[in-house]
Amino acid sequence: MKIPEILVIEVDRRPGSLARVLQVVGEAGLSVDSLEVIHRTQDKTTWELTLEMDEDTDQSIFARIDALPVATLVGISDRVFNRHQGGKIKTVSKVPLSTPQLLRDLYTPGVARVCLAIHDAPELVWEYTSLGNTVAIVTNGSAVLGLGDIGPQAGLPVMEGKAALFHTLAGISGVPLLIDSHDPRVIVETLCAVASSFGAIQLEDIAAPACFEVERALRERLSIPVLHDDQHGTAVVVLAALLRATGMVARELCDCTVGQVGLGAAGIGIARLLLEYGVSRLLGTDTDPIALRRLEDLGGERATLEEVMATCDVVVATTGVRGLIPPALVQPGQLILSLTNPDPEIEPDAALQAGAAFAADGKSINNVSAFPGLFRGALDARAAAFTDAMLFAAARCLAAHAGEGQLVPDPLDKRVHEAVALAVAAAAQDE
Amino acid sequence: MKIPEILVIEVDRRPGSLARVLQVVGEAGLSVDSLEVIHRTQDKTTWELTLEMDEDTDQSIFARIDALPVATLVGISDRVFNRHQGGKIKTVSKVPLSTPQLLRDLYTPGVARVCLAIHDAPELVWEYTSLGNTVAIVTNGSAVLGLGDIGPQAGLPVMEGKAALFHTLAGISGVPLLIDSHDPRVIVETLCAVASSFGAIQLEDIAAPACFEVERALRERLSIPVLHDDQHGTAVVVLAALLRATGMVARELCDCTVGQVGLGAAGIGIARLLLEYGVSRLLGTDTDPIALRRLEDLGGERATLEEVMATCDVVVATTGVRGLIPPALVQPGQLILSLTNPDPEIEPDAALQAGAAFAADGKSINNVSAFPGLFRGALDARAAAFTDAMLFAAARCLAAHAGEGQLVPDPLDKRVHEAVALAVAAAAQDE
Repeated sequence: MKIPEILVIEVDRRPGSLARVLQVVGEAGLSVDSLEVIHRTQDKTTWELTLEMDEDTDQSIFARIDALPVATLVGISDRVFNRHQGGKIKTVSKVPLSTPQLLRDLYTPGVARVCLAIHDAPELVWEYTSLGNTVAIVTNGSAVLGLGDIGPQAGLPVMEGKAALFHTLAGISGVPLLIDSHDPRVIVETLCAVASSFGAIQLEDIAAPACFEVERALRERLSIPVLHDDQHGTAVVVLAALLRATGMVARELCDCTVGQVGLGAAGIGIARLLLEYGVSRLLGTDTDPIALRRLEDLGGERATLEEVMATCDVVVATTGVRGLIPPALVQPGQLILSLTNPDPEIEPDAALQAGAAFAADGKSINNVSAFPGLFRGALDARAAAFTDAMLFAAARCLAAHAGEGQLVPDPLDKRVHEAVALAVAAAAQDE
Repeated sequence: MKIPEILVIEVDRRPGSLARVLQVVGEAGLSVDSLEVIHRTQDKTTWELTLEMDEDTDQSIFARIDALPVATLVGISDRVFNRHQGGKIKTVSKVPLSTPQLLRDLYTPGVARVCLAIHDAPELVWEYTSLGNTVAIVTNGSAVLGLGDIGPQAGLPVMEGKAALFHTLAGISGVPLLIDSHDPRVIVETLCAVASSFGAIQLEDIAAPACFEVERALRERLSIPVLHDDQHGTAVVVLAALLRATGMVARELCDCTVGQVGLGAAGIGIARLLLEYGVSRLLGTDTDPIALRRLEDLGGERATLEEVMATCDVVVATTGVRGLIPPALVQPGQLILSLTNPDPEIEPDAALQAGAAFAADGKSINNVSAFPGLFRGALDARAAAFTDAMLFAAARCLAAHAGEGQLVPDPLDKRVHEAVALAVAAAAQDE
């Protein structure tokens, strides 16, 4: 599974030798990212060659380079692991601490005056500390990406990724917080005990059904915004994509019958948001009877996969099961979002060939689009909770900013996150 | 209690006007930090004047400036509060997230490979995440500075100060973690639930006796270093100062009788470390009988203030009570550290006049000297706990780096923290 991208190659010091190496690279369809001499003897030059590879690249290139008479592959390393070396985030001081007077102002004795001011007027904690810019990114590692229950520390690289995105896209300080328990009560009690450290809480990669109980309890007990991203962040992006896709085919989302294949955390979050948004009829299918009851409690109808495919104008699949939807079930004119990563329930091309009016997979609907602006807006408004109005505002804003042919905007476009933040904050203040 | 230092003054546009304002400043014994025009009309110039003031400055200067016929004081603001605006720390990304390929490497799908690698080999979490550089700074706000039980959020500015110092002096990511409970069991259970998020834990400003129980339980249950700074960080700095002070008067610390006035968290931490270091006789006094029993459990002897002062070669006071030690009790040749801030148990000058060979207060013994290097060393060695050998190594290193006339080195000298870190890591690896 490893993808090494940095090659250390010893090449004969003769005209044309390096060209032969690069010819192999070119024949493999790869571009050279950089090429540097790291050592040279009378006969040989050692080159460090960095290639632009991705996880689909044919790895036989390594053997083919090594097989050249003019070259020896002496080492390979892995770009993804190199980029994760030492972690992806750090806490830094925003203030200079270079002189005794600065130390006296920012630490003792000066800081005592700030502490007392907050003690006397607790809302000043939002003004004189980083609290209002700090979001806990909480997981117990029980449903990390599509990898399942790999435990909290193995999930930490994802939480650090979220924190890196929070900083890069919204200027938010994300603090990964790993909770070593599967018991929803332990998770809730732990978070209630530490909640005063944060301006908001993002729940992440916590398996259903614990995720529902944890979020409900925290929303009841805490007066800061709490959002389970797998449910509601995903739901916001899907709502945006559906607003966009129905617009492209000149239909009204609320008038469509929506079908959901898969009712885990993401599926239930999507169902809830679409029904609240005004979708009049929503069918859902899942192998878990408790998930189906949860859907009915929200106002949806249970159905089989065949019924969903036969009946619905819009189909959203979030099952984790590759190839679950046979192309034969696709109805002409359907809109299909098949979101399981990396391998969807039905490939968009296959769905289109089978008659779908529109089809997309998880690669074009990235939930990085939603969470940075949602939290930035909630913090800026000092909202006590995320409301549906805030989620709708984010979805509408994302749909409005999607470019020609896009369902949602480029997730790395900071202006979009700023626009989402403004829309979310405005929605929070309207309430 | 507020100290405004930035003055906005409207001054007549006539030769000599500004000089008269600055004359008042000079007569008050203050230096001008900066002076800037912020507005100008035909008759008046509005200046922003920043003064180097501290908490002792006579504040009548404001009225005196305003009383000048050529000037009007139109605004004042407070440097300490200005410097705390928006908080003192932030979490930042160490990696660029500017292209889709970087997003694929650092977030999904690339990150999944790093997660799986950690799942397969858990120790890799130290290599591919920020865990090994991250320290939780934990408080329940029950004994913040000398302010008492002001609550966790009012204590946050101190925790952010620690985090800012961690970054500035040792490159460590400090994460403030506020626990909203006085119950040691809740504090322990909460920290055990989240401990896998951190490479080490610093306990801070938790009142005695809860601090003792919390630290003991965490040391038993966790396999990462845990240090209650008020006890052991302070003890390291005091041990360093005493090694230095006894060296200055050519005595051996271990041969001295040490007396402690005040046996709270700091006092008990100091007593424990000095006895472990080899001090042969240690007397202590406190108004709390449980504190005296705790001292006896460590191997110390209970005594009255008068007995301590009459018997001991070295006296260390940590009571929080200003002026508790009457100069008449000082014995000729005594070494006296009177550490309560901002007002000590006995002023160093008074102690020296009464015959002490050496006297210092808390201003010259700053515990900022110890904790950054202690944690840097423990993390670098991947130590499972702080041992006394590590604390002794830090104290000896601090004593060795103190300059002429200093008890401990300048706390803002990064080279000292590096040296302490190396000494602590070496001591950890020796064990």
